[in-house]
Amino acid sequence: MSLGTIIGFIVGIVLFIYSIIMGGATDPFVFLHFNSFLMVVGGTIAATFIAFKDNYVIQALYGMIKIFKHLDINSKTLYEDVGKIIGWAEIVKKGGIQDLQNKFDVNENKNPVIKYSMEMVLSAGKSEEIYRLTEDFIETTYDRNSRQVEILDTMATFAPAFGMIGTLVGLVIMLGSMGGDPKSIGDGMAVALITTLYGVLFANLFLKPAARKLEQQFSIIKYRDMILLEGISMLPNKPHPYTVQDNLNRFLDSSNHFDIADK
Amino acid sequence: MSLGTIIGFIVGIVLFIYSIIMGGATDPFVFLHFNSFLMVVGGTIAATFIAFKDNYVIQALYGMIKIFKHLDINSKTLYEDVGKIIGWAEIVKKGGIQDLQNKFDVNENKNPVIKYSMEMVLSAGKSEEIYRLTEDFIETTYDRNSRQVEILDTMATFAPAFGMIGTLVGLVIMLGSMGGDPKSIGDGMAVALITTLYGVLFANLFLKPAARKLEQQFSIIKYRDMILLEGISMLPNKPHPYTVQDNLNRFLDSSNHFDIADK
Amino acid sequence: MSLGTIIGFIVGIVLFIYSIIMGGATDPFVFLHFNSFLMVVGGTIAATFIAFKDNYVIQALYGMIKIFKHLDINSKTLYEDVGKIIGWAEIVKKGGIQDLQNKFDVNENKNPVIKYSMEMVLSAGKSEEIYRLTEDFIETTYDRNSRQVEILDTMATFAPAFGMIGTLVGLVIMLGSMGGDPKSIGDGMAVALITTLYGVLFANLFLKPAARKLEQQFSIIKYRDMILLEGISMLPNKPHPYTVQDNLNRFLDSSNHFDIADK
Amino acid sequence: MSLGTIIGFIVGIVLFIYSIIMGGATDPFVFLHFNSFLMVVGGTIAATFIAFKDNYVIQALYGMIKIFKHLDINSKTLYEDVGKIIGWAEIVKKGGIQDLQNKFDVNENKNPVIKYSMEMVLSAGKSEEIYRLTEDFIETTYDRNSRQVEILDTMATFAPAFGMIGTLVGLVIMLGSMGGDPKSIGDGMAVALITTLYGVLFANLFLKPAARKLEQQFSIIKYRDMILLEGISMLPNKPHPYTVQDNLNRFLDSSNHFDIADK
Amino acid sequence: MSLGTIIGFIVGIVLFIYSIIMGGATDPFVFLHFNSFLMVVGGTIAATFIAFKDNYVIQALYGMIKIFKHLDINSKTLYEDVGKIIGWAEIVKKGGIQDLQNKFDVNENKNPVIKYSMEMVLSAGKSEEIYRLTEDFIETTYDRNSRQVEILDTMATFAPAFGMIGTLVGLVIMLGSMGGDPKSIGDGMAVALITTLYGVLFANLFLKPAARKLEQQFSIIKYRDMILLEGISMLPNKPHPYTVQDNLNRFLDSSNHFDIADK
Repeated sequence: MSLGTIIGFIVGIVLFIYSIIMGGATDPFVFLHFNSFLMVVGGTIAATFIAFKDNYVIQALYGMIKIFKHLDINSKTLYEDVGKIIGWAEIVKKGGIQDLQNKFDVNENKNPVIKYSMEMVLSAGKSEEIYRLTEDFIETTYDRNSRQVEILDTMATFAPAFGMIGTLVGLVIMLGSMGGDPKSIGDGMAVALITTLYGVLFANLFLKPAARKLEQQFSIIKYRDMILLEGISMLPNKPHPYTVQDNLNRFLDSSNHFDIADK
Repeated sequence: MSLGTIIGFIVGIVLFIYSIIMGGATDPFVFLHFNSFLMVVGGTIAATFIAFKDNYVIQALYGMIKIFKHLDINSKTLYEDVGKIIGWAEIVKKGGIQDLQNKFDVNENKNPVIKYSMEMVLSAGKSEEIYRLTEDFIETTYDRNSRQVEILDTMATFAPAFGMIGTLVGLVIMLGSMGGDPKSIGDGMAVALITTLYGVLFANLFLKPAARKLEQQFSIIKYRDMILLEGISMLPNKPHPYTVQDNLNRFLDSSNHFDIADK
Repeated sequence: MSLGTIIGFIVGIVLFIYSIIMGGATDPFVFLHFNSFLMVVGGTIAATFIAFKDNYVIQALYGMIKIFKHLDINSKTLYEDVGKIIGWAEIVKKGGIQDLQNKFDVNENKNPVIKYSMEMVLSAGKSEEIYRLTEDFIETTYDRNSRQVEILDTMATFAPAFGMIGTLVGLVIMLGSMGGDPKSIGDGMAVALITTLYGVLFANLFLKPAARKLEQQFSIIKYRDMILLEGISMLPNKPHPYTVQDNLNRFLDSSNHFDIADK
Repeated sequence: MSLGTIIGFIVGIVLFIYSIIMGGATDPFVFLHFNSFLMVVGGTIAATFIAFKDNYVIQALYGMIKIFKHLDINSKTLYEDVGKIIGWAEIVKKGGIQDLQNKFDVNENKNPVIKYSMEMVLSAGKSEEIYRLTEDFIETTYDRNSRQVEILDTMATFAPAFGMIGTLVGLVIMLGSMGGDPKSIGDGMAVALITTLYGVLFANLFLKPAARKLEQQFSIIKYRDMILLEGISMLPNKPHPYTVQDNLNRFLDSSNHFDIADK
Repeated sequence: MSLGTIIGFIVGIVLFIYSIIMGGATDPFVFLHFNSFLMVVGGTIAATFIAFKDNYVIQALYGMIKIFKHLDINSKTLYEDVGKIIGWAEIVKKGGIQDLQNKFDVNENKNPVIKYSMEMVLSAGKSEEIYRLTEDFIETTYDRNSRQVEILDTMATFAPAFGMIGTLVGLVIMLGSMGGDPKSIGDGMAVALITTLYGVLFANLFLKPAARKLEQQFSIIKYRDMILLEGISMLPNKPHPYTVQDNLNRFLDSSNHFDIADK
């Protein structure tokens, strides 16, 4: 579970409720307005289904839940990845690709990039070819994932727009029945503004943050994949482990550089 | 028919009507205002005809209808495309380009990319040349299509602007005749706001979603064309079917990778 | 004359007048306010002259008129261009560059790209050199033209800003003399809003559409120039006409592909 | 002196004063409000000093004055530059680099690009090396200059924001002391709006236009530098003057092409 | 300490207080509203923690403090860097890499780029390899740092949004209890607007300027790193010191060019 996401989320909601109560609302439940919710959230989702393919939209909505999951890639795991690849390089250096075939089982590995590229290494592919094909594989996977980010970002522009539509509908109704007492005008106006409030809240506490978090997760995954690619694609040339180390260290923070001598 | 588009569209309209009725409008038909509609939609289309060539605008408006059609490219058809190309590779491997000439009829195929590139393959074109020319052909086709997206996006900025122009006209008229009873002021204001409402609704429920859907459809078509190009341009080199498989799999989702052994 | 531009323009103006009359304005001429016009249009042009070199601004203003002219490049003329270049290729194939020198008069041709590149072809320039130099020539011409688009786009952001400035001036004056009767307040407000109305109208019916149309015309011109370049730069290599056909067809719509056999 | 800039500037100011007087302001000096000016301009400059290094900000503010100076690069001077370089090419063609060393004094030339590149030409540098180094020199100079444009553009977003802050402060104060007579409300409101007016005016009549003009001047300088680079870097290869002419003409407008035969 | 940042910051705050007092606020402390502060700053930080990984957010918040520190890279230190590298080049020219090994201690140097690249130089790495790896190292470091800028820029869009949310909550409460005396309406409105004020102020005086300053500091660091890279990667080729000088001068302002003869 991603603690930051959950705490941020709860704090945001609590602050919102707190501001309603501290604002001296005589009836705080006026802020729970089902029809306004339906207009904003329903309208946003409807427009999104017109704008994108069904299965993409469902993926993106599922992506909003995924941001609560912890992503287990960090500077420590990257350091371990580098160590693992240097280990493979040592095997290849000593025993050649054949030795790696014995000690490495492709199907044990869940990571699709390792699977895709190592299969080519083990079947004696050339370094440049493996690099070119795997790089494209990483890119197209990243592009496919990025659709979810695009959808959430588009939804974040729809939400305030449907909030505004709801408010305009409310205003037109209220203005059309004007002439009554000022109290009813105030009430009509208050209800009309709730859709705008929902729209801005929905966009800024849910959609935009979810889009940024997902975007970031996909970037981190791609970044790790590029390190794997860089290292694995060197294996066919039987590089010296120190060469692999120098090549992969450039992707790590300078305080986190791998040093074979430290092992 | 694209179900997501249609349902999204109907739900959006229903939600809008629902919010009017639930908002307690005494006369819901105040929201049907022909002159406001004329101002917003007419103004938007007029500005669009100034901004873009006539035939492009008509294409874009026709594109808005096309989004209701189902696009028959998905991970399953891409998988089949890969299989088909691997089949051609097997023919070429065994019988050479001549054999492919017998078994493949260019004119049977409606896809312009297959037609354009296979003609060059069958007339013994070189791999690099076919790749370069077909890639350009795909790019220029994509650019030509993208104009429709640009036009719809521009219309989506015109619509709220003409909504605002209509509201300003209404406000100036109302303010100029002020001094009367508050009831008439409310009515004038209500009518004035309807153009803004139409502008925001038109942009967010029709134009923007249509632009995104079209953009996406053209991307998918281009993506498929690139896979076709990648595979077909390999044929003159008589590649091993497994090489074709490795090359094309990078474009497929890892759960969807083609495996000749599975056939 | 470009019909779409003119009709779009007239319809836009008529709709605007129609909405004033149908809005029930007691005095429609309140919308003709010379000082407001001066503030918005004058302010916009003044800021533009600070922002860009004098001769560029004048070019851009002249460009606004040019959009009413018909641009005589379309899929039919592109098809003819391709035919013409294939014709030259046939001459070169049979009689060499010398034969082309006899049958082609550079000065007869008004198109600067044909003139610039054919001069180099006739003086026995090399294909790559002609391509590189002419491509740069097309790019710099396009960049030079694009300045007009940038200026109109900048003007389209100035116009609503000066509309807002005018409205703020009007509001401050009105609010400062408040305390009088509500009628005068309404009048002051109405006049104040007219500059905003002018600003939005000026930007959305004139400046933005003109910027888009010009941008598009320059793109089309550049597109055609690239086709000419592609074809002409092949001539020094005495290519087979069919090679030229394949090379140029990639720029044409698939329904519009040139076929020498059809001639 | 750049006439367009000065006239644009004066006309903008005059129009603003004119609109105040014609708007029927009983006391035009209400628009001269020192504290509002301090809030908007002071706040904008304060935020800018937080946002950018001190010496960069001072450079940018100085850049605002520089836009009133006339930039002496135009199609005529570019034509002369081309002529000058062709002259050097003729010297090199006849007498070699040694002859150029006698006839050209680096220190006489104020232009840093000519100085930097010609020094390398005269000390027998290679064409590719001179091109690569000088191109980088031009790029880094351009990037360094572009910081001023970025700062002015950022200031143009700060100015309306601080205008809005001033207005919000004024509104809160006015609303807090409400209950008094409507006259005082109007006055408070009027004063509150003046900061918004200043912010929009400051951004649209000063900052944005200055940013565009500077951007343009730096582009023109870079464009000229690229022509110089293109020509000077050819000299080590002792090119035929006609080759230099063809190479440089692509940067000139087609109506302005240099022709050695015309000399 | 960075004087510009501190002075800009203090002046901004003072101006804000000054405008409150000069605006004639009867109770200036109405502008200190703890709940509004909590809503805007708390909401912004909450949304940021949803949007980005915890440790990145903390880094970015720490980065806001770092902008007060003086960055000790300027044209003078760059000049010295160039001198230092030319010194190394002289050592290598005379005594070879071995001599540099004696006179240069990698661990004495804190700069990670010098450390990473010089280690490869001293272990006899090839020029192209050192360039390629170190360039990637600089790029990934820069990208890692740029995340802080992205986070602050995102926060600058959240702040006004949460300000607006607070104002909408306040407006709905106030409108719901309307019907009371106008004095209380004014008060409710005043309090409601304070969150908007905080949001705009927070974004424009803190977040946006901090984002720009950090961005700039990271650019300057990268720029310096590129100069170091350019010079150090030449060492394996034992270049003439004058060649190093010509190569590095292109990165310096023309008034600041290094001249070995001046030493």
